[in-house]
Amino acid sequence: MPELLCIFGTGDLGRSLGLRLLQSGYRVVYGSRRPHSCGPLPQGAQVMSHAAAAQSASLIFICVHREHYDFLETMASHLERKVLVDLSNNLKKGIYPEANAAYLQRLVPGAAVVKGFNTLSAWALQNGLLAGKQVHLCGNSAAAKQAVAEMATKLGLTVLDKGSLSAARELEDFPLQLFPEWRLPLRVALGLMAFFFFYLLIRDVIYAYVEQEQDISYRIMVSLANKVFPIVSLVMLSLCYLPGVIAAFLQLYRGTKYSRFPDWLDRWMLCRKQMGLVALGLALLHAIYTFIIPIRYAVRHKLISRVVDEMKNNKTTPFYFDDTEAWGTDSFYVLGILGFFLYVLLGLTSLPSVGGTLSWREFSFIQSKLGHLTLFICTAHGYIYGWNKFLRSSTYKWYTPPGYMLCLIVPSVVLVLKVILLLPCVDRTLTRIRQGWERTKPNEETGTSKATNL
Amino acid sequence: MPELLCIFGTGDLGRSLGLRLLQSGYRVVYGSRRPHSCGPLPQGAQVMSHAAAAQSASLIFICVHREHYDFLETMASHLERKVLVDLSNNLKKGIYPEANAAYLQRLVPGAAVVKGFNTLSAWALQNGLLAGKQVHLCGNSAAAKQAVAEMATKLGLTVLDKGSLSAARELEDFPLQLFPEWRLPLRVALGLMAFFFFYLLIRDVIYAYVEQEQDISYRIMVSLANKVFPIVSLVMLSLCYLPGVIAAFLQLYRGTKYSRFPDWLDRWMLCRKQMGLVALGLALLHAIYTFIIPIRYAVRHKLISRVVDEMKNNKTTPFYFDDTEAWGTDSFYVLGILGFFLYVLLGLTSLPSVGGTLSWREFSFIQSKLGHLTLFICTAHGYIYGWNKFLRSSTYKWYTPPGYMLCLIVPSVVLVLKVILLLPCVDRTLTRIRQGWERTKPNEETGTSKATNL
Amino acid sequence: MPELLCIFGTGDLGRSLGLRLLQSGYRVVYGSRRPHSCGPLPQGAQVMSHAAAAQSASLIFICVHREHYDFLETMASHLERKVLVDLSNNLKKGIYPEANAAYLQRLVPGAAVVKGFNTLSAWALQNGLLAGKQVHLCGNSAAAKQAVAEMATKLGLTVLDKGSLSAARELEDFPLQLFPEWRLPLRVALGLMAFFFFYLLIRDVIYAYVEQEQDISYRIMVSLANKVFPIVSLVMLSLCYLPGVIAAFLQLYRGTKYSRFPDWLDRWMLCRKQMGLVALGLALLHAIYTFIIPIRYAVRHKLISRVVDEMKNNKTTPFYFDDTEAWGTDSFYVLGILGFFLYVLLGLTSLPSVGGTLSWREFSFIQSKLGHLTLFICTAHGYIYGWNKFLRSSTYKWYTPPGYMLCLIVPSVVLVLKVILLLPCVDRTLTRIRQGWERTKPNEETGTSKATNL
Repeated sequence: MPELLCIFGTGDLGRSLGLRLLQSGYRVVYGSRRPHSCGPLPQGAQVMSHAAAAQSASLIFICVHREHYDFLETMASHLERKVLVDLSNNLKKGIYPEANAAYLQRLVPGAAVVKGFNTLSAWALQNGLLAGKQVHLCGNSAAAKQAVAEMATKLGLTVLDKGSLSAARELEDFPLQLFPEWRLPLRVALGLMAFFFFYLLIRDVIYAYVEQEQDISYRIMVSLANKVFPIVSLVMLSLCYLPGVIAAFLQLYRGTKYSRFPDWLDRWMLCRKQMGLVALGLALLHAIYTFIIPIRYAVRHKLISRVVDEMKNNKTTPFYFDDTEAWGTDSFYVLGILGFFLYVLLGLTSLPSVGGTLSWREFSFIQSKLGHLTLFICTAHGYIYGWNKFLRSSTYKWYTPPGYMLCLIVPSVVLVLKVILLLPCVDRTLTRIRQGWERTKPNEETGTSKATNL
Repeated sequence: MPELLCIFGTGDLGRSLGLRLLQSGYRVVYGSRRPHSCGPLPQGAQVMSHAAAAQSASLIFICVHREHYDFLETMASHLERKVLVDLSNNLKKGIYPEANAAYLQRLVPGAAVVKGFNTLSAWALQNGLLAGKQVHLCGNSAAAKQAVAEMATKLGLTVLDKGSLSAARELEDFPLQLFPEWRLPLRVALGLMAFFFFYLLIRDVIYAYVEQEQDISYRIMVSLANKVFPIVSLVMLSLCYLPGVIAAFLQLYRGTKYSRFPDWLDRWMLCRKQMGLVALGLALLHAIYTFIIPIRYAVRHKLISRVVDEMKNNKTTPFYFDDTEAWGTDSFYVLGILGFFLYVLLGLTSLPSVGGTLSWREFSFIQSKLGHLTLFICTAHGYIYGWNKFLRSSTYKWYTPPGYMLCLIVPSVVLVLKVILLLPCVDRTLTRIRQGWERTKPNEETGTSKATNL
Repeated sequence: MPELLCIFGTGDLGRSLGLRLLQSGYRVVYGSRRPHSCGPLPQGAQVMSHAAAAQSASLIFICVHREHYDFLETMASHLERKVLVDLSNNLKKGIYPEANAAYLQRLVPGAAVVKGFNTLSAWALQNGLLAGKQVHLCGNSAAAKQAVAEMATKLGLTVLDKGSLSAARELEDFPLQLFPEWRLPLRVALGLMAFFFFYLLIRDVIYAYVEQEQDISYRIMVSLANKVFPIVSLVMLSLCYLPGVIAAFLQLYRGTKYSRFPDWLDRWMLCRKQMGLVALGLALLHAIYTFIIPIRYAVRHKLISRVVDEMKNNKTTPFYFDDTEAWGTDSFYVLGILGFFLYVLLGLTSLPSVGGTLSWREFSFIQSKLGHLTLFICTAHGYIYGWNKFLRSSTYKWYTPPGYMLCLIVPSVVLVLKVILLLPCVDRTLTRIRQGWERTKPNEETGTSKATNL
C-alpha cells in the first residue's frame, strides 16, 4: 500500500503537486474548506475536510497563501506531531516581519515545519520537468527533513539541507530574485558606456561643430555607438581577467593560499562569467554594426562623393593603391574576426550544458588559456586601429586622447601582469603556493595543510 | 548478494541494457533460443534458455520484436506472477490494432506487464547518458510498477507513472513522434511566407513587367526573399504574444481564472515557444540577407551607374547630403540591430539548460517584459521603414498596400491591447483575478479558491 | 541518528565534501594531524586525530595528496575492514608506476579501497552543482562499492560501476584529459587548411608575381583565408557523412550488421560530431569574412577605380546590366546563406541540452536528413561558384585546378553514394539488414538475432 500524503489547498500549485505525487506512486488526499465544490482535482485523489485529511496522513503540504494561515491555528490540535511542508512564496521581499514558515511554526508549535519546494512552479510540476532539479530544505526537526527529503528524491529532485528554520527567509527570497549576479556587471557596463558616449560625443560631434562648424550629429546613431560598444566590450573583457591576476599577486605577496581574499575581490571574482557575457553581447553588437556599415546612406554618399571628386580633379594616372594601408586594414579586420570567434567559443562553453560536459582541465584550459588569448587578440585589434595615429597631433583634439587609447590601458596592464606571472620563476612559486605550500611555516609541519588535492 | 534480473533477447538493446544493469550493481541473466551461440554479451552476464532464465529472476525485460512475442505464449506457465517489462517500439504508428504491451498481457495473462523504457536507445544506455532522464511507465499492477520504478531510480532515471496499461499506446507512439509541437508554427510560417511571396511577386516583379515593361525577376532570389523573411518574422513574433493578451481579456471578461480557455487558445499558447523560435530563425535569415546586400552584383551595378549618371549630368556643386535621410536610415538600422539582439537573447533563454538556471521571476521577466520590448522595437523598425512612404500615392501600386504595411497590423494590435492591459485600473483587476479572486462570488467564501500560491 | 562519515584531509576538497555531506543529512568527522589548528571547517563537523576519526566511522574519504599516503601505512590496523574512498588525482599522466588507488590498497591491504569522485571539483561540491552528474566507481569489493554508491545517490549523483580496482588508472586519467575526441578532427582540419593555404598561395599570389609581376600578397590576410575556410569546411562536412555511407556499403557487402566495423571506421564514426562542429566553426568564419568584404580598403579601391575607368573610357550608353550574372551571383549567395542556416541548426541540436529533448526519431531526422540536405546545398554553393569557369582555360593556371574544384570531389562522391543507398532496392535490403536479417543464414533460425528492437 503506497504512502498517503495530504495537501491543503486545491489551487493550481496544490493540484499540480498532487498530480505529480500520484504519478510517483503516492496516494493523495486533499484538505479543503468546501470538499464538495473545489473544482477539478487529479484523478485518483480523495478530498476531505481539513481536519479529516490531516488526521489520515503524517505529512501535509501547505499550498495556501500566507494570508490564510490563521485557520491552521484553530486546528492546531489536529496537526500535533505532523510534518508541515510550507511551499508559500510572497509577492515582494520584506512584506512581513518574519518568514512564512516561521509564522506557520509559531501558529502550530506542535508540528514540525519544513520549508521547501517553493522554487517549483505549478507549470514545472505539471509537465514533469523536475528531473535533476535541486531543491533546498530547512527546518528544526532532522527527522521531518529526512522524511521530506526521501519523498523529494522519489520525485527525481536532489535535496540540499540549508539547516534550521532560520534559513526560511533566504529560501523564500530566492524565487523573488531578479538576476542578482548580473547587477554589478550591468552597472559597470552601463557606467562605462555612458562615460565613453559623452566623451566621444564631445570629441567627435561637438568638436566638429565648435571648431569646424560642421553638423555631424547623424553619426551618433551608428558611428558613435560602434565606437562605444567595442571600447566597453574590451574593457569588460579585461575586467574579467584582472581579478584573477590580482588574486595571484596577492597570493605571491602573502606567500599562502589560506588567507581569505578581501571581500571586494571575492565579489568581483564571482561575477566574472557575467562580465564576460556582457562583453560578448557588446562584441556581437559591434560586429553587426560593422556589417551594416556599407549599406548606410552616409557611407554610400561619401563613396560616391569621393569618386566624383576624383573625377573632377582630373587625375589621369591610375588611382594609387596603398599596399601598407591594404595590409593594415586587413590585419585589423582579421584580428577583429578571430577575436570575435574566440569570444563566441568562450560564450558557448559558459552554457551550463556545454560546460557540464567538460573535464576540469578542459574548462580551465578554455577559460584561462583561450580567454587570455582572446584578450590579447582583441587588444591587438585595438592597437592596430590606431597604429598610424598615435603620433599624429591631429589625433589629440582639445588635448584629449581618443577613446580607443583610453580603452587599451586596462587590457594592456592585465596582459603585462599576466606575462609576469608566466615567467618561470614566478610561475613555479605560484604553483607551489596553490598546492598548499606556505612561505612562513617550516616545511616539515605543513603535511596536513598540503594534504588536499584541489 | 545483488538482485538478479533477466533479459529476453540478445540484440543491441538487450546487450546495452545488460551492460548498464551490471554497471549499476545488478546481476544479469540472458534468456536466449541459442544460449551457446548468441554472440558477445557483456562481461559478467550469464546466458541460459528462456525457461531457465525466467525461473531464476522475478523481473524480465522483453527486448524482442513484437513479431516474435508468440513464443512467450508457449512458456506462459514459466512467466506466472513475473514482472514483464515491455521495451518494444514499432516502426510506424497504427500497424497493429492493439499496443504491444497490451498484446503481451493478453498472451501471458498471469504476468504483470509494465510498459516503459522504450524511449531509451541502445546508444544512450551504452554510453551512460541516462543521468537525469525521465522515463514513463504504465501497467495494471501497482506493485510491479513500484519494482520497476525502484530499479529505474538506481539507473539514475526519474520515473513518471502514466497509469494503467491502456496508456501503453501513447508511450509506444512517443518515440515515433516527429516534432509534433513544431507542426502548427511551421505550417503558419509556411502559409504566411507563401502568401507574402506571391503578394510581393505581383506587386513588385509583375507590376514592373506589366506597367513599366522592365524584367526585374532577378530580384526574386534576394530582394524579395529579404522582404518576406522580416515580414513573416514580425507577424510570427506578434502571434507569439497575441494569445497571452487574448487570455488576459478573456479572464477580465469572465471575471475568474478558473474557467478553462477554449481549446484553440490552449493549443495556441502551447506552441508559443516554437512560434518565437521560427520567428528568430527568419530574423536571422533577414540579418544575413541584409549583410550581403553590398556585395551583390545588382547593387554594385546600381552604385556604379549612379555615379556615372551623376557625372554625366555634370553637377558641379558638391553632392547634396540629406541629413533627414541619414538620421532616418540610421535609426532604421539601429532599431533592427537592437531588435535582433533582443531576439537572440530571448532565443538563448529558451535553451533548456539556460532556462533551467533562471528563477521563475527571471524567466517571466525575460519572456514577458523583454519579449514585448522586442516586439515594440521590431514594430518600430517596420514603421520607420515606411516613415516617408505612407502618404505617397506611388506606394499603392494597383491600389494595394505594400507588404510591410500589412505586416504591421497584427503587431500594432497586440501592442495596443498590451498597453490597455498595463493601465493601472485594468492591471489591478487582472492581478486580483490571477491571485484567485472571482467577480461572481461573495468575498467571504473565496478562501479556499484563493488558497493557492501560484 | 544519521550515519557518520570520516574525511581525512582538511584542504579545499575535504572541506567542500564535508559541507556537501552535512547538507545531505550525514554527520561528518575530520581526521587531522593537528586537530586543534586545522583552519575553518564546515559548521557541525567534528575534528579528531586520524586514528580516533577512523575508528568512529566505517567509510573514510581520503582527501590527501598521494605523496602523503605513507602515514596511512603506519595506521593500517585502524583501517582494517574500513571502506576507503580514494579521491586523489595526479598533476600529469604516468608520474607513478601504479594508480593512486592501487598504491593505497597495497599500503592498507586490510581495507576495501574504492576509487571514485575524483572528477568532482571542490568548487562544484561547494556550489551544489552535483544534481544529475555521473560518477564512476571501481573497486575489488562489491559490498564497499554498494555502500559508496548508496551515499553517492543521496548526493544526487548517478553511479556507474567500472569494475575492479584495475580500472583505477583510467578513472585517474579522466580529469587530466584535454579534449581527446577533438584531436583527430582538429588535426585533419589543420592539415587540410595548411595544404589548401599553400596550394592557393602558389596558384594565386606566387603565380601573379611570377607571370604578371604583380605583388598581390595583401590578399593573403582576407581573400586567401576566405577561400581556405569554406573549402576546408565543406570537406570536413562531407567527411562527417562519409563514414556512415561507407558503413552502409560494408553492411550491404557483408550481408549482416553483426560483424564489427574495422577499427579506423569505428574511430572515425565516433568523432563525426566534432568534425561537424569544426566545419561549422569554419563556416562561421567564412560568413564573417564575407560580410566584411565591402568595407575592405582593397575592395573599395577596386570599386572606385572601376568607376573612374568607366568614365575615362567615355562610355555613353547606359551601363550594361548582365541578367545572367545577377541571377548567378544571387543564387550563389542564397545557397550559401541557406547552407549556413542549416549548418547552425545542426550545430544547435548538437548542444547536449537541446539534443536531450529530442526523441530518437527526431534526432536521426535532423542528423541524417537535414545533414545530407546541408551537404547538398553547400556543395551546390560550390558548384555555382565555378559555374562559368569550369571550361575556361585561364582557370587552370600552371595546369592546376582551382581550390574549389578540389574541394568538391569528396562531397560529390558522398552525395552520389548516398543517392545509390536511397534507391528503393538498395534501401530495402539495408533496412532488413539493420533489423537483424542476415544474408548467409537460413531464415527460420534468425529469430533470436532479430529479436531486438533497435
